[in-house]
Amino acid sequence: MKRITLVMNCPDQKGIIAAVTNYIHDNNGNIVYIDQYVDRVNTIFFMRVEFEIFIEEHSLENFKTDFNQSIGDPYQLKTDIYLNDQLPKMALFVSKYDHCLYDILSRYQSRELKVKIPFILSNHKDLMSIAERFDIPFYHIPVTKETKKEAEQEQLKLLKKQNVDFIVLARYMQIISSELIQYYPNKIINIHHSFLPAFPGAKPYHSAYDRGVKIIGATSHYVTEELDAGPIIEQNTTHVSHLNSIDDFISKGRDLERVVLSKALQLHVARKVMVYQNKTVIFS
Amino acid sequence: MKRITLVMNCPDQKGIIAAVTNYIHDNNGNIVYIDQYVDRVNTIFFMRVEFEIFIEEHSLENFKTDFNQSIGDPYQLKTDIYLNDQLPKMALFVSKYDHCLYDILSRYQSRELKVKIPFILSNHKDLMSIAERFDIPFYHIPVTKETKKEAEQEQLKLLKKQNVDFIVLARYMQIISSELIQYYPNKIINIHHSFLPAFPGAKPYHSAYDRGVKIIGATSHYVTEELDAGPIIEQNTTHVSHLNSIDDFISKGRDLERVVLSKALQLHVARKVMVYQNKTVIFS
Amino acid sequence: MKRITLVMNCPDQKGIIAAVTNYIHDNNGNIVYIDQYVDRVNTIFFMRVEFEIFIEEHSLENFKTDFNQSIGDPYQLKTDIYLNDQLPKMALFVSKYDHCLYDILSRYQSRELKVKIPFILSNHKDLMSIAERFDIPFYHIPVTKETKKEAEQEQLKLLKKQNVDFIVLARYMQIISSELIQYYPNKIINIHHSFLPAFPGAKPYHSAYDRGVKIIGATSHYVTEELDAGPIIEQNTTHVSHLNSIDDFISKGRDLERVVLSKALQLHVARKVMVYQNKTVIFS
Amino acid sequence: MKRITLVMNCPDQKGIIAAVTNYIHDNNGNIVYIDQYVDRVNTIFFMRVEFEIFIEEHSLENFKTDFNQSIGDPYQLKTDIYLNDQLPKMALFVSKYDHCLYDILSRYQSRELKVKIPFILSNHKDLMSIAERFDIPFYHIPVTKETKKEAEQEQLKLLKKQNVDFIVLARYMQIISSELIQYYPNKIINIHHSFLPAFPGAKPYHSAYDRGVKIIGATSHYVTEELDAGPIIEQNTTHVSHLNSIDDFISKGRDLERVVLSKALQLHVARKVMVYQNKTVIFS
Repeated sequence: MKRITLVMNCPDQKGIIAAVTNYIHDNNGNIVYIDQYVDRVNTIFFMRVEFEIFIEEHSLENFKTDFNQSIGDPYQLKTDIYLNDQLPKMALFVSKYDHCLYDILSRYQSRELKVKIPFILSNHKDLMSIAERFDIPFYHIPVTKETKKEAEQEQLKLLKKQNVDFIVLARYMQIISSELIQYYPNKIINIHHSFLPAFPGAKPYHSAYDRGVKIIGATSHYVTEELDAGPIIEQNTTHVSHLNSIDDFISKGRDLERVVLSKALQLHVARKVMVYQNKTVIFS
Repeated sequence: MKRITLVMNCPDQKGIIAAVTNYIHDNNGNIVYIDQYVDRVNTIFFMRVEFEIFIEEHSLENFKTDFNQSIGDPYQLKTDIYLNDQLPKMALFVSKYDHCLYDILSRYQSRELKVKIPFILSNHKDLMSIAERFDIPFYHIPVTKETKKEAEQEQLKLLKKQNVDFIVLARYMQIISSELIQYYPNKIINIHHSFLPAFPGAKPYHSAYDRGVKIIGATSHYVTEELDAGPIIEQNTTHVSHLNSIDDFISKGRDLERVVLSKALQLHVARKVMVYQNKTVIFS
Repeated sequence: MKRITLVMNCPDQKGIIAAVTNYIHDNNGNIVYIDQYVDRVNTIFFMRVEFEIFIEEHSLENFKTDFNQSIGDPYQLKTDIYLNDQLPKMALFVSKYDHCLYDILSRYQSRELKVKIPFILSNHKDLMSIAERFDIPFYHIPVTKETKKEAEQEQLKLLKKQNVDFIVLARYMQIISSELIQYYPNKIINIHHSFLPAFPGAKPYHSAYDRGVKIIGATSHYVTEELDAGPIIEQNTTHVSHLNSIDDFISKGRDLERVVLSKALQLHVARKVMVYQNKTVIFS
Repeated sequence: MKRITLVMNCPDQKGIIAAVTNYIHDNNGNIVYIDQYVDRVNTIFFMRVEFEIFIEEHSLENFKTDFNQSIGDPYQLKTDIYLNDQLPKMALFVSKYDHCLYDILSRYQSRELKVKIPFILSNHKDLMSIAERFDIPFYHIPVTKETKKEAEQEQLKLLKKQNVDFIVLARYMQIISSELIQYYPNKIINIHHSFLPAFPGAKPYHSAYDRGVKIIGATSHYVTEELDAGPIIEQNTTHVSHLNSIDDFISKGRDLERVVLSKALQLHVARKVMVYQNKTVIFS
């Protein structure tokens, strides 16, 4: 008995829910979760189904092939099919800030966050001791203007070697190259420390302080070529006042960043995020 | 026995709190509220004091003069002194949207919002019947490109004639001219339907929808020459999802706008807002 | 072309989604919304479907009969079927507080709240003038210990005569009798001014103040025999501090009550609330 | 140059602010923060002042004595005076849940939480490895019905030996004895996983689930003899829906608990909490 997650979208059309659910029933699957959404403006249908089924791990490919022939092709489905007990491999990119790193590692250690972490990578050595504390390999790949290209090749080699499924930029302060982005489309998750689209780029807490805002925020999004403009997965805000210094903004912001990034990771890992037209559909 | 509110700022200096509180005690005043704040970066001291004192209404001017000579001048104070039982006169500018108008009038009617409303002014006739419902004079001053200048002169005449203290733009969809702003500096309160500085200008809900944000917001601020860039009084946000259409954004936003504008008005009316360097100090 | 809303629950079973959606397609209906939920503990299936269909208003009964024979009976469905353009009739019970009343009437007037309001009923005359302001019939039915029974008979007579669909207690300060509750099961909506189950009964803001809580709340729920213990539709909270007096609690609470009650009404009117085992399923 | 925090309350009386601030100025102190609050119902005055002053560490006692003679006695002040660079010693009591522990240790490690942690104490061995990971002494003191009294004596010995200033119950699942509470009055901080006063005692998430609430919460409070009834320091809530299982409640609750407890600790460590009549005054 395996639990399988099926995430799909297709042009909206009559009978699509019935077709998929009937297929699962006919293969003796038991649906334990179903959520769908229709974008009526663009007439796109989105669905996420979890079901239990008697299947051997090695015959998952056969299942996929048969499903695609029976349902996928006739209905023009774009489908992803996952075995729930196969934990995704998540690489962690960090720089010098440790709060998101600690938060992620704590949740990983408590099995609240169901991933494998093959390595932590940083352009600085500051957080090496934390990686050691949690027994996770740490790679120090410095990045300078001159060495940026080589550094990225080294990163890519490491990612491929470890068969990484997705990357988390846990306050990694470097801009990611096009090549890496194209290699991991909608699979690089960033945490930006403002409520985007306000205050993109560097030093958003300083800009927020200067503008005199009464709320600050954090945004987790997929990385695309345009800086801080990728599909938003999760956002949240908190109140600030004139009593708060920039240091207070940063400190309050850390709590937001932790919670927003962690929520985005949970959604991604549970395959509840679907990207469409630079936006996300978040299944319940 | 009168209750007086004193709002002040000055260069930060030793003994300023003692000087003011001693002055009040020496004049047999009883302090019932005191809040102060020091901007350490710019070394500015801000204070708001409420006190009860035996004074005739006609001798308030004497009190002001004496206070300014004894404390104001030596400490370089900028001071505003108000009699609490003198309700400020608030003019309402509206266009076609009625939700903020209804909300304000309800709070006004229930004496939750302690102001006088000499009139409601609009460039359209749509909301005239609401003004009538609440027995408030309604002036229809249409604004077109050609007549904008004349219309503003008419507005100004009306405002002066009624001795208006401050103006609320309750979703008034016109840009306010420099002249009016200079006549009412930090006394024109606007509600903008986004979490500024994101999505300034027209149609912020549409822009928010297109960007795929997971939160929307509203901002109440004083109107300055630069559009939607004045000192922020109050902001709030609420969550949205891919399930929400633009109409849902607008509908959820209405609730935010009501609450944010009403909160800003309460703060302004209670003289709890002090503007400094395009930001606000909000007393507790 | 009519838009119909179908709300249903039944024992969870294979093929139920397909059965319902196929039935609608076979009758040339076009599904524009579908949301379902399975309570896995009690194995109950809940679904809400909106669809467009060519049907005459007078043949809705035929449609219901046929649907029940084809799908309802074999699958043991409990079903409610509504024509979306038939606005429900909502009676308003009030006492002396006007903030929820004003809020509801404003939304009603703006067609944000899509109901008919046949009358406002109160045990006091205080809010009569508001009813007049909005041109809605007002009935004053005083309630004393001695006359409570008669008063309720009068209320019931009025409700029946006007064919009222549901009742809103917009801070109506009287306890509702069993008879009325049984006549309108899960159709009497109350707003209670605390985050239930904390502080049920009278004077919750005073109790909250005495306990020194840092948050206050409001809860909208269906009225059942046990006081303040019915199925919860919507709740929200806001922060308070030691700076806030009981009057501040009451004032902040008013904003919560307005928003929470209004949200509950919107959900009820859109037939998005389904009651099960003293809890609510809220469709998206 | 030392920074000193002075926290005080006294019967409200004229001239008290001036008396304290003048005293500090006369001793060449420079006030960098001042916040006061008057409970008008009980006519109690509360104040927290931070100031910089030239003073040797060993002459702090002289300062205290002189301050008490000059100001404390005449004004009936209850005063606490702290040197800001003396970090308080915080003992951590845990059981089997690790999320609050990880959160606290991460903030401690990052110097976000400015305390010394002499030891972690638990009635179970489950979290020993985390203590080791962070190089903090771990004491395993099992508690059974029979050994409860001895166990507490052992705890008390350890606390005294290490000169502990306050205790954090980071999901320590045991009830604290009167003796320990009397030894650390308003110095034992608990995190309870509900919005008190709703759902005190065991299994609040289960009770919340059964009641069908739409919000869950967490409360951090000082431990008093009555269970979960001590002065509340911080509370927060988050939304839940019928879609959430008890496990979801627990998981969402973990994030609340982390943030609420951490906020309470920050306030306590900064000496911003003052307890009065089973409530807290929280300075800004």
